[in-house]
Amino acid sequence: MSSPLRLVSQSRCFQGTVTKYEHDSQVLRCTMKFNVYLPDIKTGDEKLPVLYFLSGLTCTEDNFIQKAGALHSLSEHRVVLVCPDTSPRGVDIEGQDDAWDFGSGAGFYVDATEPKWAPHYNMYSYVTVELPELVNAHLPVDPTRMSIMGHSMGGHGALICALKNPGRYRSVSVFAAICHPSQCPWGIKAFTGYLGKDNKTAWAAYDATALVQRYEGPRLSLLMDQGDQDNFLKEKQLLPEHFIVSVENCRQKQNLIVENRMRPGYDHSYFFIQTFVEEHIHFHSLHLSASI
Amino acid sequence: MSSPLRLVSQSRCFQGTVTKYEHDSQVLRCTMKFNVYLPDIKTGDEKLPVLYFLSGLTCTEDNFIQKAGALHSLSEHRVVLVCPDTSPRGVDIEGQDDAWDFGSGAGFYVDATEPKWAPHYNMYSYVTVELPELVNAHLPVDPTRMSIMGHSMGGHGALICALKNPGRYRSVSVFAAICHPSQCPWGIKAFTGYLGKDNKTAWAAYDATALVQRYEGPRLSLLMDQGDQDNFLKEKQLLPEHFIVSVENCRQKQNLIVENRMRPGYDHSYFFIQTFVEEHIHFHSLHLSASI
Repeated sequence: MSSPLRLVSQSRCFQGTVTKYEHDSQVLRCTMKFNVYLPDIKTGDEKLPVLYFLSGLTCTEDNFIQKAGALHSLSEHRVVLVCPDTSPRGVDIEGQDDAWDFGSGAGFYVDATEPKWAPHYNMYSYVTVELPELVNAHLPVDPTRMSIMGHSMGGHGALICALKNPGRYRSVSVFAAICHPSQCPWGIKAFTGYLGKDNKTAWAAYDATALVQRYEGPRLSLLMDQGDQDNFLKEKQLLPEHFIVSVENCRQKQNLIVENRMRPGYDHSYFFIQTFVEEHIHFHSLHLSASI
Repeated sequence: MSSPLRLVSQSRCFQGTVTKYEHDSQVLRCTMKFNVYLPDIKTGDEKLPVLYFLSGLTCTEDNFIQKAGALHSLSEHRVVLVCPDTSPRGVDIEGQDDAWDFGSGAGFYVDATEPKWAPHYNMYSYVTVELPELVNAHLPVDPTRMSIMGHSMGGHGALICALKNPGRYRSVSVFAAICHPSQCPWGIKAFTGYLGKDNKTAWAAYDATALVQRYEGPRLSLLMDQGDQDNFLKEKQLLPEHFIVSVENCRQKQNLIVENRMRPGYDHSYFFIQTFVEEHIHFHSLHLSASI
């Protein structure tokens, strides 16, 4: 049987390889691309820990792997990186390319229920089920050692993936995450479009600030970085302060180990991510290598 | 008098700032952009050493600063980085956007003499005279501590800038440089278009393999990195082997300290650059900080 993963391109980087794959997604009903950084394998049966990175609005599978400067650290810690795209691609939905913050490049990591979007816009199932199954089956990764991180919309994605699946991810970290989508303009627009207007129950199921209140699961370590010169923070698109209050009031506060850092002078860009990404990789590496 | 440098954008990165400037270029007769990485200045009159990076075909002032992962190392060594664009922009020359390897994004770091291109395509004077004068006048850099590096077409640019201006640059380094443009398809096309068909004297004045033979100047250190899986190496676009033979046969061989490295498995991409850029910054930093 041939692999469902088709090789698009491959480049050596540090002591490993960046590979772009293409595959036919069942849950998104389209062809998707993703990038993998795979440190060199030392023995035939070696399985490495794996870190998923979810990207932000307008991004693709390329932004983080090209611009974050993370590969040196992943090579040193020998952690596999998987970078999916941010929405279905090449599908035919009227209006999907009209806005930069909704539709193409803005899947928001939910499974859409609105009829117009539901056949394709199922990024939550894609990044939590379909893609990990593919990666686990066809790449030398250890499915029991998995962590997740993200930026902005992808920070939202990383938080909800971890909070909705207790025990699945060893650790979660975010840069400038959208922490309370039900109450910020980007989130309200996306949730209205994908989940239905004022469908508060459905919205809460994809909202980190709501989810964390009722988290019940094993200990989960969260690392959050935010620049204080981030315009989207000032415009109340991110609302990390709501998430932190929610953590303080949550049922199982003792099982949520949150380190929340405000970085003076830094903005929302990949220059901010570059600056602190090594600390994030180190954080994940510690959790991924721990005996549990 | 207001500064000729207009601020376009600014982001903090590591212990310094990435700033994009715009200005009206006299030698190119158009508006140009460039990026600067400036490590934090400790005292009001401090002047830092400065490193110019010349980019490759199709690139802009953004590629290296966003994708090379070099800023950590520049922050640590406290070296200013200046990244110019690769051609005049927004000028009106028929056919300039028809090819990816000639015209826009492909100025080739020459001063054009062909009448069609001569009014604007003077990237050699831009990167060696106009831009350094602006940078020296308006940014806290030490003009006596200047080095240059580049990639592909920009590697060619870095080599000729250093070889044509003995003593101007403390050190030069290249990734996958076009080393013998008079004899590779890209260079022949560019030199024919900008300098005239078969104008061998003019061509030789912008060809590193020719220039190095008659180099007469102080000691110059060159660091060259090349991936052996670079398709453009295989297609004979780069010809580093010609340059190395020319160094062996040059008049002042004792003053050219060349370290030429072939890197197994690496290609022409920024993933290759990312892998070795820290070594290049370290190399330049040593030369820029030396007492001479």
